[in-house]
Amino acid sequence: MTAPLGVGIIGVGLMGADHAERVAGRVAGARLVAVADRDTDRADALAARFDGVRRITDPLDLVADDEVDAVIIASPGFVHEEQVLACLEHGKYVLCEKPLTMDSESSLRVVEAEHKGARRLVQVGFMRRFDPEYARMKEVLDSGHLGRTLLLHNIHRNKSVPDPSFRSEMIVRDSLVHEVDVARFLFGEEVTEITVLSPAPTSAAQQGVLDPQVALFRMEGGAMVTSEVFVNAQVGYEVRCEAVAERGTVTIGQNLAGIHTTRVAATGPSTGSAPGTWGGTVPGDYRERFARAYDLEVQAWVDASRRGERVGPTSWDGYAATAVCTAGMESLHTGEPVRVDLADRTALPG
Amino acid sequence: MTAPLGVGIIGVGLMGADHAERVAGRVAGARLVAVADRDTDRADALAARFDGVRRITDPLDLVADDEVDAVIIASPGFVHEEQVLACLEHGKYVLCEKPLTMDSESSLRVVEAEHKGARRLVQVGFMRRFDPEYARMKEVLDSGHLGRTLLLHNIHRNKSVPDPSFRSEMIVRDSLVHEVDVARFLFGEEVTEITVLSPAPTSAAQQGVLDPQVALFRMEGGAMVTSEVFVNAQVGYEVRCEAVAERGTVTIGQNLAGIHTTRVAATGPSTGSAPGTWGGTVPGDYRERFARAYDLEVQAWVDASRRGERVGPTSWDGYAATAVCTAGMESLHTGEPVRVDLADRTALPG
Amino acid sequence: MTAPLGVGIIGVGLMGADHAERVAGRVAGARLVAVADRDTDRADALAARFDGVRRITDPLDLVADDEVDAVIIASPGFVHEEQVLACLEHGKYVLCEKPLTMDSESSLRVVEAEHKGARRLVQVGFMRRFDPEYARMKEVLDSGHLGRTLLLHNIHRNKSVPDPSFRSEMIVRDSLVHEVDVARFLFGEEVTEITVLSPAPTSAAQQGVLDPQVALFRMEGGAMVTSEVFVNAQVGYEVRCEAVAERGTVTIGQNLAGIHTTRVAATGPSTGSAPGTWGGTVPGDYRERFARAYDLEVQAWVDASRRGERVGPTSWDGYAATAVCTAGMESLHTGEPVRVDLADRTALPG
Amino acid sequence: MTAPLGVGIIGVGLMGADHAERVAGRVAGARLVAVADRDTDRADALAARFDGVRRITDPLDLVADDEVDAVIIASPGFVHEEQVLACLEHGKYVLCEKPLTMDSESSLRVVEAEHKGARRLVQVGFMRRFDPEYARMKEVLDSGHLGRTLLLHNIHRNKSVPDPSFRSEMIVRDSLVHEVDVARFLFGEEVTEITVLSPAPTSAAQQGVLDPQVALFRMEGGAMVTSEVFVNAQVGYEVRCEAVAERGTVTIGQNLAGIHTTRVAATGPSTGSAPGTWGGTVPGDYRERFARAYDLEVQAWVDASRRGERVGPTSWDGYAATAVCTAGMESLHTGEPVRVDLADRTALPG
Repeated sequence: MTAPLGVGIIGVGLMGADHAERVAGRVAGARLVAVADRDTDRADALAARFDGVRRITDPLDLVADDEVDAVIIASPGFVHEEQVLACLEHGKYVLCEKPLTMDSESSLRVVEAEHKGARRLVQVGFMRRFDPEYARMKEVLDSGHLGRTLLLHNIHRNKSVPDPSFRSEMIVRDSLVHEVDVARFLFGEEVTEITVLSPAPTSAAQQGVLDPQVALFRMEGGAMVTSEVFVNAQVGYEVRCEAVAERGTVTIGQNLAGIHTTRVAATGPSTGSAPGTWGGTVPGDYRERFARAYDLEVQAWVDASRRGERVGPTSWDGYAATAVCTAGMESLHTGEPVRVDLADRTALPG
Repeated sequence: MTAPLGVGIIGVGLMGADHAERVAGRVAGARLVAVADRDTDRADALAARFDGVRRITDPLDLVADDEVDAVIIASPGFVHEEQVLACLEHGKYVLCEKPLTMDSESSLRVVEAEHKGARRLVQVGFMRRFDPEYARMKEVLDSGHLGRTLLLHNIHRNKSVPDPSFRSEMIVRDSLVHEVDVARFLFGEEVTEITVLSPAPTSAAQQGVLDPQVALFRMEGGAMVTSEVFVNAQVGYEVRCEAVAERGTVTIGQNLAGIHTTRVAATGPSTGSAPGTWGGTVPGDYRERFARAYDLEVQAWVDASRRGERVGPTSWDGYAATAVCTAGMESLHTGEPVRVDLADRTALPG
Repeated sequence: MTAPLGVGIIGVGLMGADHAERVAGRVAGARLVAVADRDTDRADALAARFDGVRRITDPLDLVADDEVDAVIIASPGFVHEEQVLACLEHGKYVLCEKPLTMDSESSLRVVEAEHKGARRLVQVGFMRRFDPEYARMKEVLDSGHLGRTLLLHNIHRNKSVPDPSFRSEMIVRDSLVHEVDVARFLFGEEVTEITVLSPAPTSAAQQGVLDPQVALFRMEGGAMVTSEVFVNAQVGYEVRCEAVAERGTVTIGQNLAGIHTTRVAATGPSTGSAPGTWGGTVPGDYRERFARAYDLEVQAWVDASRRGERVGPTSWDGYAATAVCTAGMESLHTGEPVRVDLADRTALPG
Repeated sequence: MTAPLGVGIIGVGLMGADHAERVAGRVAGARLVAVADRDTDRADALAARFDGVRRITDPLDLVADDEVDAVIIASPGFVHEEQVLACLEHGKYVLCEKPLTMDSESSLRVVEAEHKGARRLVQVGFMRRFDPEYARMKEVLDSGHLGRTLLLHNIHRNKSVPDPSFRSEMIVRDSLVHEVDVARFLFGEEVTEITVLSPAPTSAAQQGVLDPQVALFRMEGGAMVTSEVFVNAQVGYEVRCEAVAERGTVTIGQNLAGIHTTRVAATGPSTGSAPGTWGGTVPGDYRERFARAYDLEVQAWVDASRRGERVGPTSWDGYAATAVCTAGMESLHTGEPVRVDLADRTALPG
């Protein structure tokens, strides 16, 4: 346990570069040893910023590398399956960013492959489970003081989407998937049905993209979940969650934390009756809102890996969330509820 | 215009008694002259609390009374139609509590009866339009600075329902109806479709009552509205509304106003690490939350009536809201979306 | 008690005109019958806006007028003494805006004159005692649940002062006087010592004006009060109060109530990482912040006057607050604590 | 720079043990190698919780130890001088918890000893400068958008003091010292005068202890600072700061962040009109409120030490804060303002 964990990172876009900074500069017990990215210039530039970090061209070589004890996958979703399977094959702990894979079938293949092995190695990057607010929310709900939870209301807004080819289905698969995991986490149950509806879209979205969307989940125990997902909200990154229980509610993510200012109104100085304003700023993106959650997630992953253990969201969590989103993408086209049929968990090997 | 308006009140339960206090003690230009209630003891007791207020046994006699210039109807919904029609017949201004009537057909009869007359006489008691927060919210949205409004999220929670026979349909007709009017008011459009869904109900509800409920509206212009209605929420009266527009949001009704306290935690004194709490109290009912809205509503009604004018929500607003709720009660049984078909407004007489 | 109270108003500047609207249009049981103002054009213009309201040239004639049952004094402070004494002489109920008079000697003369008469007739316009938040704060503190109150922190900010000749002493006499009354009201004790300090003044103040100021009070029972008064704060009207007790605190007036918005940041649209903002507006002046307090104050005064009673802050309250401010103006020049020596209350006639 | 920094910790009470967890488990680039404490059992117990950490009996031996590259001093204040001087002698980077030493003379000796050396080695543990909220507050004030800062209001409340012998002077030296540093940090100026006043104390304080206290600072540029320090506040740990500038204000530390709940009121269930409550919990101590600030502080210290640099609050900052508190302890006894006379900074060697 004394030697630091050698970490390799596959994919060094926004998310992967952020993880590189974290592993190299903010986490105890880890050493960043290698990075890989299909954009080799980007990988070289990143590697050069740290002492002794190698760029490896082929991600599968990175997985196989002797110095790499554990792998963070932050590459595009469509290569996740191959890369996670390689980690399993080499017996390396892996923290895979969401979505686990692109559809429920491939996610199930990952679950089965992991369960055929002796050790559980996969952690899926649903970082919100490490956010102190979500964690505390779960504690309060689980304490039972408020009775049974009846409803959950989620708000998920991004300022805008970087990728001009971001399509309606991606809102379900890449954004709503967080709300699916939150629902599964807070209730400790599976989602059994999903409906995805959409109003007339914002003019800030690409032509033809259904944004915002309103999703409804039915949970195994009969509770319901409503989620607004709006990825071109312009203002900033807002993630809010309110649980409604029989004898009270729990809310996190209101725009109240941090620094407040009052100011002379922008439209003019002290003349006339134009009032001033009070308030604060909305975070620009998830890196600010969930900075601490990501730090705690990666620290927990490093600590567990060094002990030879696995923590946090499992491959099954990744599979189940993907399965719900796969059903959600179907519902998006019809507006009808779609049932979620999961594999038989008890039949998994291992 | 100098003489005060003689006001008669039909129905002196919680709401009617509150209006009596208001007319007699907090509103300028009005004089409470008569009350009627099928519970004549209750009517006598109320009349006795004010100087020179008569109890009239038959509500229709109250309407016809020479001293009564204008009528507030706060009786049960199933007698509204007859009483409003009597007001129209006698040419008296009337402020009718919601719902206007029990179903869309009867509400339409009221609209048509009013439109056959020369003067518009009916104001429906959707008091939220007079709430300074809802009014300001509409101003901000109408200003266009935030772009088109895409979504509206409503929360409507009551501590509990006084009437043990309160049934699932009544949640739609008597509670959700406020959210219907809010949506019509803020968008300035009709609701074209409604879906009413429900999770496994709270154990605090009567056996067989679907509480809470989640309603979805589609608006004429393509926007969507989500509303939680929960009438046995135990905690208190919470009404919240968030509008999501293309370049920003507007929210009212967060539990932040008023007096805040910090306190030693109830569970024990200063020993140990048990932290103290901060926060405030949730209003017990609508009379506290909407105290100012009711005052402004009745003052506006009195002022307009003295000038020979009508203000605020019209009989059409009452009809349209009832029609949406009638469709909603149908949806409640099937879980399917139900279209709302309104009469042709342009074909109304007058 | 059935006849409405005939009300005359002396002084129809900002405050008096607001009271005229209130008496004529928002309060039950009153009738605005006459107004007086040394600016007779302003008085005529105001009178003309209401039915049957006379302009009387000499304020003392207004006091003596047969139709005037009760008087609101909203004239400049230096004529208050003469006008209140006239009301006492004619046996008329009077609501006198703060300050009661310009210094402690003249205020004491008013107290003594009232106490020589058989009836108590004077209410001083410390409207905050009628504000639901201050009233509730007093209830919580008086309940004893939080133990003894140790400290009070007040914030009092105005956007700017209308009068270019507003001097440092006026900040004490016209603004700080509210905080003095709040302290006396919440503690139920007299202020025994006052210190008024000032930092390097804001450039928004007139040359030579000490703004902001920080005042410290010692209360009879040993508690302390800190008050910031800042009358050229530019942003708007903020009044906040926090009581610190042995087992908790109570705070009112935080900028959290009402409508909240999120918006794209003013400096630019959705490009880049510039975040959006959330928050609300700060009220422009006291008429917005204390709208309800003023309505409740005047309604209580009208109701009591019609019953032949007196309510709210007394002439002694007006005197004591003025005496503290007189000492405060002395401290402002030296920065030293100044003792407040009040007359012997038990020696008052009546 | 590749080798991790070997860290030794002197003093493993509440604060030192927290730092041990941080260095061993949450910070990159460091290795906890040794601990020392006059309570050797406590030191042994702590050392045993980590792999390869030695207990060294004499703190000065720890400083001299070859494996120890840098030292954290979390021992009682009265041994700080000797221990910091030892670090200087051995050329080791040192993070010394506040207060730097017990009085201004000894602090000045430390400053002079450091300045006689070639390198600057001392960081004082004013962690608030690393708190993202204080840091952002300084940015906003320094931007100049709000004009000159005129006033600062600080609130500093502890639930209770662990040590029954905690005396009035310690409130100044150990608690108020943070507010002194905050004022110096935010204004970028020295404090020139301090007054410490106190109301009748809380019954929760030890007999004879003046708690709470109200301190007033005058800054070099003419601004004023008010600080409430209340170390037996019972409720929890509250640290709040409001800066008042010419065109706006900045506030941090309001009790609004994090998780909110609504609940049925503790006094009873849903019957009657007793309303429910909304709100959250107050942190129990500084470790929760400033968790991130401490992490960032220690990470910055480790990173700088590895680069051969020094960051954060200097020995001069420690000296100046101690000098203000020394004057404050004098004022506490007289209630009079006391001037702060600092050494001539420009005359320091080096």
